[in-house]
Amino acid sequence: MLSKIRKSIVFLSVFLISSSFAATKDLQQIMKDRGLTERDVLAAAKTYTPTGMKDEYYVFSSGGQSGQVLVYGVPSMRILKYIGVFTPEPWQGYGFDNESKKILESGYIRGQEIKWGDTHHPNFSEKNGEYVGDYLFINDKANPRVAVINLHDFETTQIVVNPVLRSTHGGSFVTPNTEYIVDAAQYAAPFENEWVPIEAYEEKYRGGVTLWKFDYDKGKINEKDSFTLELPPYMQDLSDAGKGVSMGWAFTNSFNSEMYTGGIEKGLPPFEAGMSRHDTDYMHVYNWQLLEKLAKNPKNTKIINNHRVVTIEAAVKAGALFLIPEPKSPHGVDVSPDGKYIVVGGKLDTHVSVYDFEKIKKLIDKKEFVGKDPFGIPILDMKKTLHGQLELGLGPLHNSYDKEEGIIYTSLYVDSQIVKWDYKNLKVLDRVNVHYNIGHLDTMEGKSSKPKGEYGIALNKLSIDRFLPVGPLHPQNHQLIDLQGDKMDLIYDMPIGLGEPHDVVSIHASKINPSKTYDKMGTNSRTGEVHEGATLAGQERIERDGNKVKVYMTAIRSHLNPEHITVKKGDEVTIYVTNLERATDETHAFGVSGLNVHASVEPGKTSSVTFKADQEGVFPYYCTEFCSALHLEMMGYLTVKDDKKEYPDYKAAKVAKMSPAELKKEYKKILATNKATDAVIQSVVKFLKEKGYEKYPEIKALVKDALNQYGKIKEEKAKANKAYKDGDLNTAILWENQIWQYMVKTADAGLRAKNLLVKELSTKMSKNARKGEEAYLRGGCNGCHVIGKVSSGPDLTGALLRHENAEEFLYKFILNPEEYYDNPYMDAMIKAFNLRMPNQNMKPKEVKNIIEYLKWIDENAHLNQ
Amino acid sequence: MLSKIRKSIVFLSVFLISSSFAATKDLQQIMKDRGLTERDVLAAAKTYTPTGMKDEYYVFSSGGQSGQVLVYGVPSMRILKYIGVFTPEPWQGYGFDNESKKILESGYIRGQEIKWGDTHHPNFSEKNGEYVGDYLFINDKANPRVAVINLHDFETTQIVVNPVLRSTHGGSFVTPNTEYIVDAAQYAAPFENEWVPIEAYEEKYRGGVTLWKFDYDKGKINEKDSFTLELPPYMQDLSDAGKGVSMGWAFTNSFNSEMYTGGIEKGLPPFEAGMSRHDTDYMHVYNWQLLEKLAKNPKNTKIINNHRVVTIEAAVKAGALFLIPEPKSPHGVDVSPDGKYIVVGGKLDTHVSVYDFEKIKKLIDKKEFVGKDPFGIPILDMKKTLHGQLELGLGPLHNSYDKEEGIIYTSLYVDSQIVKWDYKNLKVLDRVNVHYNIGHLDTMEGKSSKPKGEYGIALNKLSIDRFLPVGPLHPQNHQLIDLQGDKMDLIYDMPIGLGEPHDVVSIHASKINPSKTYDKMGTNSRTGEVHEGATLAGQERIERDGNKVKVYMTAIRSHLNPEHITVKKGDEVTIYVTNLERATDETHAFGVSGLNVHASVEPGKTSSVTFKADQEGVFPYYCTEFCSALHLEMMGYLTVKDDKKEYPDYKAAKVAKMSPAELKKEYKKILATNKATDAVIQSVVKFLKEKGYEKYPEIKALVKDALNQYGKIKEEKAKANKAYKDGDLNTAILWENQIWQYMVKTADAGLRAKNLLVKELSTKMSKNARKGEEAYLRGGCNGCHVIGKVSSGPDLTGALLRHENAEEFLYKFILNPEEYYDNPYMDAMIKAFNLRMPNQNMKPKEVKNIIEYLKWIDENAHLNQ
Repeated sequence: MLSKIRKSIVFLSVFLISSSFAATKDLQQIMKDRGLTERDVLAAAKTYTPTGMKDEYYVFSSGGQSGQVLVYGVPSMRILKYIGVFTPEPWQGYGFDNESKKILESGYIRGQEIKWGDTHHPNFSEKNGEYVGDYLFINDKANPRVAVINLHDFETTQIVVNPVLRSTHGGSFVTPNTEYIVDAAQYAAPFENEWVPIEAYEEKYRGGVTLWKFDYDKGKINEKDSFTLELPPYMQDLSDAGKGVSMGWAFTNSFNSEMYTGGIEKGLPPFEAGMSRHDTDYMHVYNWQLLEKLAKNPKNTKIINNHRVVTIEAAVKAGALFLIPEPKSPHGVDVSPDGKYIVVGGKLDTHVSVYDFEKIKKLIDKKEFVGKDPFGIPILDMKKTLHGQLELGLGPLHNSYDKEEGIIYTSLYVDSQIVKWDYKNLKVLDRVNVHYNIGHLDTMEGKSSKPKGEYGIALNKLSIDRFLPVGPLHPQNHQLIDLQGDKMDLIYDMPIGLGEPHDVVSIHASKINPSKTYDKMGTNSRTGEVHEGATLAGQERIERDGNKVKVYMTAIRSHLNPEHITVKKGDEVTIYVTNLERATDETHAFGVSGLNVHASVEPGKTSSVTFKADQEGVFPYYCTEFCSALHLEMMGYLTVKDDKKEYPDYKAAKVAKMSPAELKKEYKKILATNKATDAVIQSVVKFLKEKGYEKYPEIKALVKDALNQYGKIKEEKAKANKAYKDGDLNTAILWENQIWQYMVKTADAGLRAKNLLVKELSTKMSKNARKGEEAYLRGGCNGCHVIGKVSSGPDLTGALLRHENAEEFLYKFILNPEEYYDNPYMDAMIKAFNLRMPNQNMKPKEVKNIIEYLKWIDENAHLNQ
Repeated sequence: MLSKIRKSIVFLSVFLISSSFAATKDLQQIMKDRGLTERDVLAAAKTYTPTGMKDEYYVFSSGGQSGQVLVYGVPSMRILKYIGVFTPEPWQGYGFDNESKKILESGYIRGQEIKWGDTHHPNFSEKNGEYVGDYLFINDKANPRVAVINLHDFETTQIVVNPVLRSTHGGSFVTPNTEYIVDAAQYAAPFENEWVPIEAYEEKYRGGVTLWKFDYDKGKINEKDSFTLELPPYMQDLSDAGKGVSMGWAFTNSFNSEMYTGGIEKGLPPFEAGMSRHDTDYMHVYNWQLLEKLAKNPKNTKIINNHRVVTIEAAVKAGALFLIPEPKSPHGVDVSPDGKYIVVGGKLDTHVSVYDFEKIKKLIDKKEFVGKDPFGIPILDMKKTLHGQLELGLGPLHNSYDKEEGIIYTSLYVDSQIVKWDYKNLKVLDRVNVHYNIGHLDTMEGKSSKPKGEYGIALNKLSIDRFLPVGPLHPQNHQLIDLQGDKMDLIYDMPIGLGEPHDVVSIHASKINPSKTYDKMGTNSRTGEVHEGATLAGQERIERDGNKVKVYMTAIRSHLNPEHITVKKGDEVTIYVTNLERATDETHAFGVSGLNVHASVEPGKTSSVTFKADQEGVFPYYCTEFCSALHLEMMGYLTVKDDKKEYPDYKAAKVAKMSPAELKKEYKKILATNKATDAVIQSVVKFLKEKGYEKYPEIKALVKDALNQYGKIKEEKAKANKAYKDGDLNTAILWENQIWQYMVKTADAGLRAKNLLVKELSTKMSKNARKGEEAYLRGGCNGCHVIGKVSSGPDLTGALLRHENAEEFLYKFILNPEEYYDNPYMDAMIKAFNLRMPNQNMKPKEVKNIIEYLKWIDENAHLNQ
C-alpha cells in the first residue's frame, strides 16, 4: 500500500507540474474554495465525463406520473433524453403530429382520451435472459397499458390497453426470450366494464396477470395472441419471470390477501390498516408455458371484452397456479441470474426471504400442499420452499443482483439504506446510507441473467434538503453508488426535476445502436415505412379535394417550401413536412402560430399535422429548431380567407425602385462576394481532399453535408443567370443571395470538418511544447500574436524560419526584448505594428518551451493554410 | 509558482495518506481507468457537488418548443426542475387540475386551445436593474404570450395573450424596476384578426412591441394598463431595456428591413435570400417612459382587439421612436450594466457593433437625422452613434457581460466559439471552442446591472457526437465555462434531454427563497388564497347538487378520505383534495384510473379535478406519489352506477369468521406489537428531547412531522377501545393496526431525526481514529461486529471497558487472536458465538488506530442508545 501511495505522490507531482495552467486554480485551491474533501475528489473523478467522452451505461427510467421514460448515462448521471410515451410532449412533436397522435389514441380507454400515465417498470427485450437493446417496454399503472419503445430511434411505436384489468403494477417484465411481456394487476376490479358495489369484492372483483405476446421481428405486441390469467383480488404487485431452472415459470406477489375493502368515510379503518393485518401475503407461482397451451383451448377460458381469460379453475386443474405465503406486504420479487432463487422483501417485515425454486418445484411435483385459498388455489408450505431468511432492517423493498454469484443488493425504505448481502450464505456484507427513503434500486444489468455489477443506483423518493430549494414540489434524488470495491461508495446525487421515476433498468452502452437519421427519405417513424406524404425536393405542392387541403412541404436549411399557403375558412388542412437533410442532428421542426400545431422532423422523416382552419386571419409558421444561423428566416405564412366576406382591393406595395445603375452595382457586389466565398470553400475542399478526409467517418459525414448544401447552388445559379439574361437584375440579385446562403451553410459544415481534420492530423505535441503553449497563453502572448494570422503583432508561424540562428535569437529576444528595439529588423517591425514587444519576465525554461511550441507550430503550419 | 506546487505536493501526500480507503481506487488509478487528463480532474473538482452541498447559482432556462422552463444549478449543471408553463405536464398536475387548467385556458387564442409554446427568453423581476428572485417572466414566440412564474413556489400563475401580434420573439425583457415586460414582435402580420394577402405586406402587415404593465405586489400583469407600439413590418427581433444613462429607453433590432415576402413555391427566391439582401437592418430606439404617457391620450392610439396601440405617427411626432442601421440580420442587442453601451452582433456579419447611448441621445436631442424610413421614422447616422466595431468571427449572435467593467462575452454561431473581448478598447482577449453552434450564452447575472462573472454557459444548438446516441433527435449541449481565470476554461457538458432551450438567465442562490410547504392549509397555489374546496381533517364529505357531485377529500400518510365514492352515470364530479401534511417533501398526488384525472398536491395545498362520469364501472384511485412505505395502500374506489340499469342483488361476501379465541390471540398480539413499537418511539423521543433537538431546524421539522403522525393515534385508540368494549374484536384489531401504521410513520421520521442528531452531536474523530475506522472496514471486522449491537460477534461498544489494561490486551489480541483461544473469557465468547476471531493480519499501526476508533465509539456510545 505504501509503495502505491509513494507512486501516487510521484504521479501527482507530475500531475501538478505538467497540469494545464489554463485552469487558474490548482486542485488544492479548488478543494479549499469549494469545501471538497479528498473523498469528494475521488468521487468526482469517478463520475466526471469530459467533453466528448461517452458514458459506459444507459439507464432507462420510468418517469412515474409524468408518463414518460427518461434516459441517462452512467457514471455521469446526465439525462440524455425524455421519451414521450403516455403524455404528449411538443418538443418531440409527440401527441401533436398525426403519426404519434395515432399511437396515443390507441391508448385511449373506452373512448376516453388519456393524456398521462403512471409509468412504472421499464424492461428491455431479452434473449436467454440477457438484455438486448432493441426494445424497451413500459407499463402504465394508472391506466393499465403497456408501451413499446423502439430503441433504434427512441420513439414509442405501440400502446396497448389492458382489456380486463383496471390497474396494473407488476409490469412490464419479460420472459427470457421476450416471448411475453408480463403485466400483473394491482387494484382488483371487475373484469367487465360494469358497476359492482365494493361489497361484492370477493365475488366479482378480480386480480390477474396479462401475458402480452410479443412479435420480435415486427416489434409489436400481438393483442390477439395475448391472454390474461385470472387471479384472486389480492392486489397483485411486482412480478418476475423465471429463467434457467425456473424457465417457463413466473412469480407475482401481493399485498391484500386479507381482501380488506376499506371505508374510512363510513368510520371503518382505512385500507392501510386492513391490508397489513396478516403476517403473510401470497406469492403467485404460475407456469406461463403451460398457460399458453391452456389459453388455446376455449374450455379453459372466458372471453371478456374480446380477450381470453384463463380461469383460476382451469389453471389450478392443469397444475399451472400455486400460492406460497410471503412476508407481510412484500414489494420486490426478484429471480436470481441462474433462476434458482427468488428473493422477496416484505416491506412491513424486517426480513428478506430467499425462496429456492427447486424446493418449490419438488413440492409441486409431489403435490404436497398445506391447503387451498378461498379460490381453490393450492398453497405451498412457506418454510419448505425457503432457502432462508435474513433480517436486513426496516422496510426492505427491492433487489438487484451483483456480477458475483450469490451477491445481491436490497433497498430499505424506512432505514434509507442499501444493504449488500450474500443470499446463499445469508450474511450481510455492507450497508450504505442513501438520502432519503429509497424505493427501487438497480445495479448494472442487475435483473438480467448476466449482471455486470460496477454501479448501483438508489431511487430515493424524497430529497428534502439535498438540493437548492425549488418550492414545495421537490425533485427526487437518484444516487450513484460505486460497487467496484468491497465497500459500497456513494459517489453522485442526481436530482430528477421532472417526473417521479419508479424504477430503472440499465444496459451497457455497446448494446444500443440507434440510427442517426432516417435512411429512407420520408420515413414515418412510427411505422418504419415510407410516409404516404413523403415529399422529395421538387415534389412540393398544394392539393385540394373539396374542403380538404393537403400541403406537401419540404424543409432544408434554411427554408420551407411552400412559403405561402392560402386556404378557405372551414378547410381541413393537412401539412406533410419532409426533412430533406442527410446530416446528423439537423432536425427541423414546424410550428404554426395560434393553431396548436407543432411537429419535430428529424433528418429523413416525414411528419404530418392536420387542423381545421376555422378562424380567418394570417398565421405565420416557422422552423422552431435553431437549425442554422438563418432559422428565423425559415418561415412562411398561412392565410385563411373567408369566402363569404368581401375584402378591399389590396394592392401590392410600390417597391421603391432602384436605378439600373444601383442594381448593377449591387449585382456586381454580390457576385464578388460569392466568388470570394467560393474561393474559401474551394480551398477548404482542396485541403480536405488532399489530406484524405474520407478516412474519418465523422469528418466524412460533415463533408457530405457541406457538399449536399453546395450541390444546390447549380440550380439557383441557372435561375440567377436566366434572370440576368432577361434583364431582371432584381431577381438575379436575390438568387445570387440565395447562392450565398447555401455557401454560408456549406462553410458552416466545411469549416467544422476542416477543424476536426487539423486536429486529427497535427503531430503530437511534446511535453515541453505543451508546457510552452501554456507559458505562451499564461504570458498573454496571444494578446498580440494570433497563430496563422497577422494580428496586432506578427504571425509567429515561421518565426523560426525568418531568422538566422533563430532559436538562440528568439530565446534572447523574448528574455530581453528591450535590448533589440534598435535592431534594424525589430525597428521595422515596431514601426509596422506601432507596438513594441514588452518584457514578459519569462523564465529561461519557459522561453525554451515556447520555442518548442513554435517548432510544433511550424511542423503543422501546412495544416493551417 | 514552484513553492505553490511544492505546497500542493505536500498537501496531496496528505490527501493520499489520509484519503478514505472506502474508495477502492486512488486518483491515479481512476484517471488511468477512465482516461482522464489532469485538466479533467481539475474540471471535475470545479463542478462536482457532493451529496447535500448546494449549488451557487440557479439557472432558469427556456425549454424552447417544449413550452416549459427548466431550472438547473451551477456549477453542478444538474437539472433541479421543469416548470409547466405553456404545456400540460401531469407530474405537476399542470393542465390537469382545475386551478392550473384555468391558467392554461387563459392562454388560449381566439378560443383555440393551445397545448404547447416556444419559450424563448426568461427574465427575472428587477429592482434598479438588479435581479430580484420574486418572479420569472417567459415569452412564447409561437403563440404570442407571456407567462409569470412565482418563484415562491415555482408555479406559473398567469398567462396573457398578445392581442395584436401573431408572433413575438423579443420578449420577455423587463425595464429596470419591472415597470414593464417588453415583448417585441417577430413575424409581421395584420393587427386585426382578418385575412390580408401577402401582397399587402407593406400596407397592412405590422410589427410592434408590447409593453406589459406589471403590478409587482399582486405579481400580475395588468392587461388594461398595457399597450403596444406599432412598428414597421421589419421582423423585430431581440430587445433590451436601457438603464442608468439610458433609463427610460429600450432597443429592439430587426432582420427584414428589406420587407421581403418570399414565395419559393412561385419560383421566387425564398425568404432567406431576400431577408439578408441589405448590408444593414434597423435597430429601433424608443422611449417607453414617453410612450407610456402618449398611450394615455386617445389621440395617439388606435384601439385594436380592445387594446391600445400607439401609432408610429404619434410616436414619431412625440420624439419617442428612431431607427439606427445595424449590421446585417442582427440577433443580440445587449445594454451594458451601466447603460452606456449597446452591443449588437450581426449574425451575417463578422463584426460586433458597440453603440454609444450618449452619442445616440445627442443626435436625437439635436434632431440630427440622415433620413426617414418609408414609415416616416427618423434614421440616425450609424457611424455617428457607434463607439466602434470589432471583427470577432463568423456568426456573432449574443452577448453577456462580465463582472469586470468593459468586458463582454459574445457567441459565434458558425465558428462555434465564445469570444471574450473588451468593448471599450475593442480588443479580443480570449476565445474558447464550444460544441457545436452556440446560440445564446450567459454569464452569471450577466444581463443585470451587477454582473457576477464566475461562470459562463454556452447554449449549443447541436451536440452531434458529444453524448451516447439517443436516435435522430439529439439533446442539446449546455457547456459550463469557468470565467474565474484569465483564460476561459470549458469544464462541463450538460445534455438537455427535453426541450430545445433558447436562452437562460442566472441568479445567485441567495436571492431565491421559495416556500417548502403551503402555510395556509388548503391553499390554491395559483391564487395564493385559501381554496374554496379546502378540507380540514374531519370535514371530509360528499355533497350532491342535482347531477353535480362534490367530494371534499383529504390526504395524509397513508390514506385518502373518502375511500369509496359512488356516483351516477352522467354526473359531473369534482374532487377537492387537501394534503394535510406539514412535512417538507411529503407531496401526495391523486390519480383515477382510466378517466384522465391527475393532480399533484403538495403539503398544505388543495387541488381539484372535475370530470364527467359518463362510463359505468369501477375506477380505482390512488396516491401516485411514493409518499410512504404504504403508498400502494393509499387508495380508494370510485364506482359509477347506471341508474337506468338493473343490477343483480350482490351480497356481501361471507368473510371466513375467526373464532373468538383466534381473535383474542390476534388482538393481544397487535397490542403487544404496538406496545413494543411505542417503547421504541418513546426512547427516540426521550433521546431527542434530552439532546436538545430543537436547536437544529431540520431535525426540529422532522420531529414535528413525527409527532404530527403520532398525534393521530389518540383518536384511533379511542375507536379501538370502543370496539373492544362493544365486543367487536375484529374492528378493534383493525384500529390497532391503524395505530401501528401511524407508529411506523412516526418511526420513519423520528429515526431520521435521531440519526441526524447523532451526526450533529458525535465528537469529531481524530485522524488516527478515522484511519482506524478505515482499517476496521477494510479488514472486514464489520462482517461479524456491528457497532451498538450484538451480531455474529459481540458488540464492540465498551470493549475497552470490559478488560483490564484493555488497550494493551486488545492490541495483542487483534494481532494474534489464536494465542488467546484458550483464555477462559475468550473461550466463553467463542462458545457463545460459535465462532473464533480470525487473525486478520493487521499491521501494528493499524491496530493502534482501530483502538483509537473504539475509543471514539465509547466516547459517543451515549448517542447510540
